[in-house]
Amino acid sequence: MYDIAIIGKGPAGISAAITAHARNKKVIVFGGDSKKLLLSPSIPNYPGLMEIKGTEFVKRLNEHLASTDAVLSKKMVTAVYSMGGYFAIQAQNDMIEAKSVIIATGVDFKKSIENEDTFLGMGVSYCATCDAPLYRGKTVAVVGYNKESIEEANFLSEVCSKVYFISMTREPYNFNENVEVIKDIPVKFEGHMHAQKLILKNTEVVADGFFVIKDSYPLTSLVPGLDVDGPHVVVNRAMETNMKGVFAAGDVTGRPYQNAKAVGEGQVAALSAVDFLNGRDK
Amino acid sequence: MYDIAIIGKGPAGISAAITAHARNKKVIVFGGDSKKLLLSPSIPNYPGLMEIKGTEFVKRLNEHLASTDAVLSKKMVTAVYSMGGYFAIQAQNDMIEAKSVIIATGVDFKKSIENEDTFLGMGVSYCATCDAPLYRGKTVAVVGYNKESIEEANFLSEVCSKVYFISMTREPYNFNENVEVIKDIPVKFEGHMHAQKLILKNTEVVADGFFVIKDSYPLTSLVPGLDVDGPHVVVNRAMETNMKGVFAAGDVTGRPYQNAKAVGEGQVAALSAVDFLNGRDK
Repeated sequence: MYDIAIIGKGPAGISAAITAHARNKKVIVFGGDSKKLLLSPSIPNYPGLMEIKGTEFVKRLNEHLASTDAVLSKKMVTAVYSMGGYFAIQAQNDMIEAKSVIIATGVDFKKSIENEDTFLGMGVSYCATCDAPLYRGKTVAVVGYNKESIEEANFLSEVCSKVYFISMTREPYNFNENVEVIKDIPVKFEGHMHAQKLILKNTEVVADGFFVIKDSYPLTSLVPGLDVDGPHVVVNRAMETNMKGVFAAGDVTGRPYQNAKAVGEGQVAALSAVDFLNGRDK
Repeated sequence: MYDIAIIGKGPAGISAAITAHARNKKVIVFGGDSKKLLLSPSIPNYPGLMEIKGTEFVKRLNEHLASTDAVLSKKMVTAVYSMGGYFAIQAQNDMIEAKSVIIATGVDFKKSIENEDTFLGMGVSYCATCDAPLYRGKTVAVVGYNKESIEEANFLSEVCSKVYFISMTREPYNFNENVEVIKDIPVKFEGHMHAQKLILKNTEVVADGFFVIKDSYPLTSLVPGLDVDGPHVVVNRAMETNMKGVFAAGDVTGRPYQNAKAVGEGQVAALSAVDFLNGRDK
C-alpha cells in the first residue's frame, strides 16, 4: 500500500511527490507530461528559472522527480474510491491502494456529452479494459479523444462483434476490420435506464455499450463524494478537500493557472498529507 | 506613485515582483537577502532546482529579480498607513506611496520587550532617523539587535546629549564618545503615559526616549488595522488580508515555512493585487 497516490504529473503533482519523498513517504504518481507546459514557448515567472522553455521546464521537473523513489505510472486513473481508512484507485485494469490521495489533474474545459454523467455505469464507461467483458460478442461505440482511445477501440474489437469509433482526435489510426469510423460530433446519449443510442450532429449510433476515452474525467465521477465548484475542487489553505485524506493542488483548485502557484500548492498538499498520515490533525 | 510596494525580498517577495512585472506593474521591493535562505546548506524540494544551496538559490532569485524593472530599496519599512485610496510607506526617513501593498516579511519569533507595544509612539520608537529630532539635547536608550542599530546609535549620539546602547547583537561596534554600552537583557518598559524607564535583568535605564532597532517589527505596528493570528497575517486563498489593497505571502501567512509555498503565494498575491489595481473585484 502506498502512503500517497498523486493523480497528475504536472508541476503540482511533481512538487507534491518531491516534498513527500523528502518526508520519506511511499509515493505513486499517475499521468504523463503536462501538454500545456510542453506547448509553452517561454515561462516568464517561475522564480529561479528565467524565461525557461516549457519543454526544458518539463525536463528539469522530470529529472527532479526521477531523483526520488516515487513510482511512476502512465495508466489513466478513472476512479478513486474511499474504502474507510484507505483509498482504492482504479487505473485502467489495475486497482492500486493508498492511504491518501492528492488530486493534481489540472483543469479541463472540454464539455461532457449531454447525459454522459447520467448514464455513467449504465451503458457509458470510461474504461475499455475494465468493462469490455460486459460486451462480449455485442456492439459498442467508442468516442475517442486521444491516442489511447485508438488502442482501446482495437482492444474492444477483439472482444466485441462490432465497434463504432467516433473520432474526436487527429491521431492516425489503423483499425481492425470490424471497427467502423464515424466522422461526426457527439451531442447526446439517449436511452431508458441504460444508454441505448448516441445522437450525433448528422446521424445516430445504436449500440449495447458506449465508451468515452479522453485525457481527463469529470471530478465528480473521478472521486465520488468530492466537493467541487464547476471544474475546480474546493480546498482550504491547507489544500484539504471535504474528504479526509484527499488533497488537491494546482490548476484543479482554481485560478490563477500558473506554475509557481501549482508548485507551491503541491508542496502544501504533500505536507498536509504527511500530517494526515502521521495522525496529527491540524 | 508605485502600483505595488512589496515588503520583503525573500522568495515570496521576489516571486511577487517577477509576476507583477510580467503584468506591467510599477513595483518597489524593500528588504535585504533572506538570512534564513543564505544559511540553508541544501534545499531538497524546490522543483526544477535539485539540491540547490541557499546561497546559489538567493543568487538565482536576485538575477531573476534584476531582469525586471522593479525598484529595490534596502531601507527598513517601519510602518504602512492606509490613506484611503493609496498607502504611505515609512521607510526610515523616506515616505513612499503605493496603490497596493504585499507583505512578505517572513516570520520572526523574537519576543517583544514587555510594554513595547503599549508605549510605541509614546517614548518608544522603531525609527531613529524619523524620531531623533524629538530628543535633541536629551538622553535616549537604544536596544540594538543588528548592525544597523549600531549606525543608528551613532547617528542619535550626534543629536542627543547621551545615548545608552543595550547590545543584543554580536556585531562589532565603534561608538562615539557619548554612547555608553550596557551588557544586559531588557525586560520591561515602565512609565506613566510615556515610557520613562527600561528595566533590565540586572539594572535599569532612565531616558527621555527609547529606540528598539531590529530586523522585523510586530505586524500590528507595521500595518495598523491588519488582522493577525499570533506572528501570522490572516489571508484567504487569494492572499487577501482584511484590508482592501493589502496582500500577504510567504512565511508571514503561516506554516509550512517552505520555498515553493512562498513562491506560489507571492505569485498569487501579485495577481490578486493586479486584479485589485484593475478594479476587478473577484
